[in-house]
Amino acid sequence: MHVISEQRLDDTVLEREFVLGEVPGTLWTPGSTAAPLILMAHNNGLPKSDPRLVARARQFATRGYAVATIDAAGCGDRPRSATEERARADLRRAVQAGGPVDEVFESVVGPLVERAAPEWRTTLDTLLSLPGIAGPVGYSGWTAVGIRLAVTEPRIAAVGLFAGGFVPRTQREEARLVTVPLLFLLQWDDEGNPRQRALDLFDAFGSTQKTLHANMGGHVGTPWFEVEDAGRFYDRHLR
Amino acid sequence: MHVISEQRLDDTVLEREFVLGEVPGTLWTPGSTAAPLILMAHNNGLPKSDPRLVARARQFATRGYAVATIDAAGCGDRPRSATEERARADLRRAVQAGGPVDEVFESVVGPLVERAAPEWRTTLDTLLSLPGIAGPVGYSGWTAVGIRLAVTEPRIAAVGLFAGGFVPRTQREEARLVTVPLLFLLQWDDEGNPRQRALDLFDAFGSTQKTLHANMGGHVGTPWFEVEDAGRFYDRHLR
Repeated sequence: MHVISEQRLDDTVLEREFVLGEVPGTLWTPGSTAAPLILMAHNNGLPKSDPRLVARARQFATRGYAVATIDAAGCGDRPRSATEERARADLRRAVQAGGPVDEVFESVVGPLVERAAPEWRTTLDTLLSLPGIAGPVGYSGWTAVGIRLAVTEPRIAAVGLFAGGFVPRTQREEARLVTVPLLFLLQWDDEGNPRQRALDLFDAFGSTQKTLHANMGGHVGTPWFEVEDAGRFYDRHLR
Repeated sequence: MHVISEQRLDDTVLEREFVLGEVPGTLWTPGSTAAPLILMAHNNGLPKSDPRLVARARQFATRGYAVATIDAAGCGDRPRSATEERARADLRRAVQAGGPVDEVFESVVGPLVERAAPEWRTTLDTLLSLPGIAGPVGYSGWTAVGIRLAVTEPRIAAVGLFAGGFVPRTQREEARLVTVPLLFLLQWDDEGNPRQRALDLFDAFGSTQKTLHANMGGHVGTPWFEVEDAGRFYDRHLR
């Protein structure tokens, strides 16, 4: 892991840009010496510098967590193959046309999850070897990758998942294998995530401790207090 | 309003038993001089002394709220007419038989809501005339009465509702008229409240600020952290 730049945000939180192989990432660490870790994953091709993501990460770090995000395969400035670009264009057209998008979605996002999950595991191994970062580990964000990691990675002790209306078939089937505490956040009128599918997915998780939070509005309308609620969720399960 | 007994719970919270006409109630007040008020209503024939209700009220009071509950018509030791007793027995039999209960439910709970709501309004008038209790006013608990009060009582600024799978027809229709901020709490496997109906009711509310919280388990299995979440909901809207 190579640190490219760092800045101190206030008296306690240190923000570091890094690369790990070909994967760019950001790590926020609080002043404490054995901070629990939150992996904060995003999809939709968003860059890790997206202001809403950064604000959320800084809030968790201020709360005492080490927080890491990476531009996994398909996100930010990561190079995309011509096949990927075509598949994404197909998906955009299918969504705009308002027809069924399941198969197109599957062909775009299914492979992305398969490629992103090992990158996250490598990142996790590296982060836990750093001084000042302990465990247990929480996960926050992109639903499909969160399911895959929760099922394959026993170090993950709690997951906060967002949206979840469109999730590849493999992860929908894996959801029942997730047994760690779960906070499932959805927007009631998420334009990209059918509500009933998200509710069905919540129902499918195997966790005995699972909580659903839903708020009004579209995909990017989540109210800020949900970040604080998520912080308390991690407090309950990671401390 | 006649105070029957009082005890100081700790350095700040005062708990008073009172009667108002034929209605028995309990009032918790914090040390502060102009506390916002939370009306905490229950159904199911529960007495206001139910330990879970009392623990919730004390928690809100410790947070700085004046909290009041009454044994409204049909609750606690309030006398029931032979007609009411027969209707309740009919409802129990219908639920146990597992058949359709809508009409029986309607005949039991519809009139209860009609009788409880004016008692709550009278209580509210009295409470707001007491020294140390200001406004704004929040509501917590029994869904049907909460809908009726939110629609008819402009002093109510935020409502936290629980369950809501079975709600009389009139209140289901009134839900779209509720426009104050709403926290809607449900138990995913509530044996007395069908999940889909509760979700449909949440969808129907007219409030632009509405949040759904759902947790695993049956009717009495709500985790304690929801009391704290509700406290923060009232903090956002009543302070």
